[in-house]
Amino acid sequence: MIRVGIVGATGYAGAELVRILSGHPQVALSVLTSRQFAGAKFEEIYPAMAGRVKLTCEKLVVEAVCDKAELVFLALPHQLPMTIVPEFVGRNVRVVDLSADFRFNDPAVYESVYQPHSARDLLDRAVYGLSEVYFEAIRSAILVGNPGCYPTSVLLPLIPLVKAGFLELNTLIADSKSGVSGAGRSLALTSHFCEVNESFKAYKVASHRHNAEMDVILSREAEQAVQLTFVPHLIPMSRGMLTTIYVTPIKGVQAEDIRNCLTAAYSDQPFIRLCASGRVPDTLHVKGSNYCDIGFKLDKRTNRLILISAIDNLVKGAAGQAVQNMNIMLGIDQASGLLQVPYPL
Amino acid sequence: MIRVGIVGATGYAGAELVRILSGHPQVALSVLTSRQFAGAKFEEIYPAMAGRVKLTCEKLVVEAVCDKAELVFLALPHQLPMTIVPEFVGRNVRVVDLSADFRFNDPAVYESVYQPHSARDLLDRAVYGLSEVYFEAIRSAILVGNPGCYPTSVLLPLIPLVKAGFLELNTLIADSKSGVSGAGRSLALTSHFCEVNESFKAYKVASHRHNAEMDVILSREAEQAVQLTFVPHLIPMSRGMLTTIYVTPIKGVQAEDIRNCLTAAYSDQPFIRLCASGRVPDTLHVKGSNYCDIGFKLDKRTNRLILISAIDNLVKGAAGQAVQNMNIMLGIDQASGLLQVPYPL
Amino acid sequence: MIRVGIVGATGYAGAELVRILSGHPQVALSVLTSRQFAGAKFEEIYPAMAGRVKLTCEKLVVEAVCDKAELVFLALPHQLPMTIVPEFVGRNVRVVDLSADFRFNDPAVYESVYQPHSARDLLDRAVYGLSEVYFEAIRSAILVGNPGCYPTSVLLPLIPLVKAGFLELNTLIADSKSGVSGAGRSLALTSHFCEVNESFKAYKVASHRHNAEMDVILSREAEQAVQLTFVPHLIPMSRGMLTTIYVTPIKGVQAEDIRNCLTAAYSDQPFIRLCASGRVPDTLHVKGSNYCDIGFKLDKRTNRLILISAIDNLVKGAAGQAVQNMNIMLGIDQASGLLQVPYPL
Amino acid sequence: MIRVGIVGATGYAGAELVRILSGHPQVALSVLTSRQFAGAKFEEIYPAMAGRVKLTCEKLVVEAVCDKAELVFLALPHQLPMTIVPEFVGRNVRVVDLSADFRFNDPAVYESVYQPHSARDLLDRAVYGLSEVYFEAIRSAILVGNPGCYPTSVLLPLIPLVKAGFLELNTLIADSKSGVSGAGRSLALTSHFCEVNESFKAYKVASHRHNAEMDVILSREAEQAVQLTFVPHLIPMSRGMLTTIYVTPIKGVQAEDIRNCLTAAYSDQPFIRLCASGRVPDTLHVKGSNYCDIGFKLDKRTNRLILISAIDNLVKGAAGQAVQNMNIMLGIDQASGLLQVPYPL
Repeated sequence: MIRVGIVGATGYAGAELVRILSGHPQVALSVLTSRQFAGAKFEEIYPAMAGRVKLTCEKLVVEAVCDKAELVFLALPHQLPMTIVPEFVGRNVRVVDLSADFRFNDPAVYESVYQPHSARDLLDRAVYGLSEVYFEAIRSAILVGNPGCYPTSVLLPLIPLVKAGFLELNTLIADSKSGVSGAGRSLALTSHFCEVNESFKAYKVASHRHNAEMDVILSREAEQAVQLTFVPHLIPMSRGMLTTIYVTPIKGVQAEDIRNCLTAAYSDQPFIRLCASGRVPDTLHVKGSNYCDIGFKLDKRTNRLILISAIDNLVKGAAGQAVQNMNIMLGIDQASGLLQVPYPL
Repeated sequence: MIRVGIVGATGYAGAELVRILSGHPQVALSVLTSRQFAGAKFEEIYPAMAGRVKLTCEKLVVEAVCDKAELVFLALPHQLPMTIVPEFVGRNVRVVDLSADFRFNDPAVYESVYQPHSARDLLDRAVYGLSEVYFEAIRSAILVGNPGCYPTSVLLPLIPLVKAGFLELNTLIADSKSGVSGAGRSLALTSHFCEVNESFKAYKVASHRHNAEMDVILSREAEQAVQLTFVPHLIPMSRGMLTTIYVTPIKGVQAEDIRNCLTAAYSDQPFIRLCASGRVPDTLHVKGSNYCDIGFKLDKRTNRLILISAIDNLVKGAAGQAVQNMNIMLGIDQASGLLQVPYPL
Repeated sequence: MIRVGIVGATGYAGAELVRILSGHPQVALSVLTSRQFAGAKFEEIYPAMAGRVKLTCEKLVVEAVCDKAELVFLALPHQLPMTIVPEFVGRNVRVVDLSADFRFNDPAVYESVYQPHSARDLLDRAVYGLSEVYFEAIRSAILVGNPGCYPTSVLLPLIPLVKAGFLELNTLIADSKSGVSGAGRSLALTSHFCEVNESFKAYKVASHRHNAEMDVILSREAEQAVQLTFVPHLIPMSRGMLTTIYVTPIKGVQAEDIRNCLTAAYSDQPFIRLCASGRVPDTLHVKGSNYCDIGFKLDKRTNRLILISAIDNLVKGAAGQAVQNMNIMLGIDQASGLLQVPYPL
Repeated sequence: MIRVGIVGATGYAGAELVRILSGHPQVALSVLTSRQFAGAKFEEIYPAMAGRVKLTCEKLVVEAVCDKAELVFLALPHQLPMTIVPEFVGRNVRVVDLSADFRFNDPAVYESVYQPHSARDLLDRAVYGLSEVYFEAIRSAILVGNPGCYPTSVLLPLIPLVKAGFLELNTLIADSKSGVSGAGRSLALTSHFCEVNESFKAYKVASHRHNAEMDVILSREAEQAVQLTFVPHLIPMSRGMLTTIYVTPIKGVQAEDIRNCLTAAYSDQPFIRLCASGRVPDTLHVKGSNYCDIGFKLDKRTNRLILISAIDNLVKGAAGQAVQNMNIMLGIDQASGLLQVPYPL
């Protein structure tokens, strides 16, 4: 059993990592850290796991974590990971970082969206952890920047089509909708029950930080500059993310071409499910699982391709993909520990 | 007091009409009909109104309704109104029809989307009841085709900008999200609690019947053929509709131009509220009210205008706008009966 | 128009007072105070009321409020009102206090549950504002302690039966369920969306402060010591409270006696609705209204009377009853401003 | 691998059986039947399981099922199982029936609550499948009547205390609250989204059929006639059941005695978790799992014991307990296939 640790285990992404890793057949969860709850048993913070997770949360001491774990997950707010990742990497402890700190190879882009980066020299070694797309690079990475939830939902349906040259790249629009867990466990009026319940709204319209992340990856895959129009919305539910993408296909591209392209890219992938013609994804169908369901419709009338993806923002959008990346880094089956049967409702 | 009736009073739109009209200071609700609940007191069907609505539901007999009402609302599935509207109009009883049957002047368009129309000759006399836009025509109408909920949310923000010539009309995309009450009170798996709760999905992708309604009105206002890409989604909540519109402005149009145009169109309108810069609409802010809140952002980076509107699908999207149209037809204040103070949550 | 003010206008109870009083035909809302949002327009805090409420929130200065208002509502956390109520009363400004500070005449009881009381000498002059029961005393009060939400839902169905001597008083159990708005707008993990959504739980089991309030009033009405077993629960929804009461009736009491007793007590009351036999209350039927719906079932098999009440915790459980009390104090119709037609859903 | 079948696989309990059994390490799901969806792939009915469940739904033909399965689950409305169970049992195919048809040994009781029983002679051989309590009898049963969801939540906390003689048996009251999935997938206005959402209500007050089931079992364990007052309520959420029990303990019983009794009964049981003192169960903590969490408080003031249990109504309240019973019948670990790590939210 490979020993792994979680730094920042009591936020929602951290707790979801605890859930998945506790049931993983090839790893042993050996250390959990939490600033806020150091000293408390994990099961006191999340009584759902009473009797199942025996660990007590510790204060973060990097050496102590390195002694106990061969690979660590960082589930911290951005700006913190960059201060500790060098220490982990310096000790040859592999890292999957769920924040934005190591998603960008170019520090200038990171800094234009976030803040100054204090571990710039590590950015070259960091691999963007979109598992299905960067499998090979992840396999040999010591440091993975785990993708944001929105980028995961936008990039998976788009990348095969971008690479095939099927899209008018200046027409890309992504309208995303996310459950509230994406905002995390920190208290905020915007996550206060009565402000969210029976409410639906957009936020950070065309100004969300994930926009840069998507633009960088799309540009890399397209081998030209791509700029996406991106608007996120908040759904009054806990888990789930649906993205509706609008794009003009290049002349002559037919629905069949789209289907063939996506099938070729993903038919061997265990977590991408392409909906049959006439069917569309539903967040309920991926709740609690690592699946990304993808459907599409080519609107002949207006010549627009509508791509729709659904993920669980905490699983494929965070902890699940992080474990998938760990599996790849460890050279074990990428689906290991991630294949529990989904709930019918 | 003007006597008014509701045909189809026990569906959600009908019940919402009952609510609004029961509190209206200038009309008296004199007759309610219901196929399914004929003979039952309305308050037994909707106990929320116990002690407030005394009427008993009747079977529909057109003459009987005409004897009791000077104006009737029809809250029936489409295809039924066309069979009875001629009788009402023939007796000089004014009609506000909430179905699609009298929203199109051109029977060919209606028939291409719905089914054969059996009252084609009345279509010319029917006025499309988008209150703020067709105020003058509604004022003298004997028959109003009340707009669909989606068209209301799409057309109100767009029409002033279309008329101003500010938009590249071939770039129009509307991504709409609706609460479940829009699907009505008829039993269906798609409205079954556990299928909807904690679920978010698109439906009728680029194939919703409201698309034709929007195209016709946009084309009329643009004085050229306009085709909208339209995708509706279902939100796990009861009331509320949010529409996010993406469109490329013509060269040179600035955010200030957009704001000035919308302000000029709507500043005197009691039910249109333009959000301050940096603010966006939220369905929670219009729940239970006849307001349409509108916000926008001009994304300079991708040169796209993002317009967002929020309405309560049962009020401004159905019963509220129907009463507003009645007010206009009766020559009374268009806001009469519609100005109760909104709920903070 | 009588000028009234709200101290603590931006919490949920305060905002609900703003809503109701803004639409009240006989009063003018003249001043709003808020510690947290002093200087901000009320409509910026609650955009639902954009265009409807013009007031700006002020810092609390008692004299300034007294200059502007003949009656004030205090919607503050307990312990604060006792420090300012003496000043208002000293200036002959009438007060409806929504906190617990003036619900008890006996300071010892208050202090055993809350903390030391700094305005003990005013307790004798404070009237417990259960409108239907203490109408006469409220009418001449200068200071009303508005009841808690749970006590309102428990006491209204019980008091007539207690007074009639129909109940074995040592068998009283109340199992209450409340929507989340009862916990207010202050941030807390227990009101954080993902902790509440799809969750149902009890809290403060047999240790809620409202227990003492109920015991005092029940004892007063029974003219003997009564102790209620009380367990509150949290429902994953915004508004609404349902209480299920279990009690053994004294020998010989029939269902008809129960009905007659409740009917006699409440048939003239505008806000109490007794459900027909076989029907039970539903929080959805009272949402947004000042109604208290009451139903009951006498279980012959186990000889237990089951009483069920439903209220909107923010209306009859807080702001609505407060306005009802104001109406009574001002000598106007107790239902004034409180009779908007309820929503069907 | 033992081959098992599900008759009635497309209702919610059936689908939950499919989920659990598809991931069970010792059984192979070999046949699914569905009246409504015969001929359709299961994954078309529940797209959540796309790629995971390959079976196609068949029409029920008992011999065909018997050829394919050594044990069958019946997830049908009551009254149907009694017509087919004799055939299964006659062919030595073991049965776990999730309906009420085989929960009663005394046909007279069944018939007083449901309808005439056509397989009365099998009732003696049927074992009531409350796994923790009737483990030994289940082990050798050919036919198990799986408990109702409400009885499971009521009986598990009560039985050890009843057997210990700790309770005044004529004071038992259970106030239960259930998520909507308990009402199944059949269309009904009472499960229609807008009728349930933001609503909380009681139903079948002191007249629910599960009452008889609980009375029979409690009487058996108490060795005297016991009658419970029982009121179920509906929570606006999909999964979860919380029961609050009120009972007077006999003189001298202390909180410590209660805790010791429950600990002794359940400390070796994998699915019963006793909350630490001061903690209470939350349906969110058992969602999707087979756990029954139990907490309690002894209210010294009123001398009442308050017991609270939480289960997932579809798992421990239906499909999970059914699989637990299957495990026991097959002589394998009772927790097999049922121990996936719970979700933190």
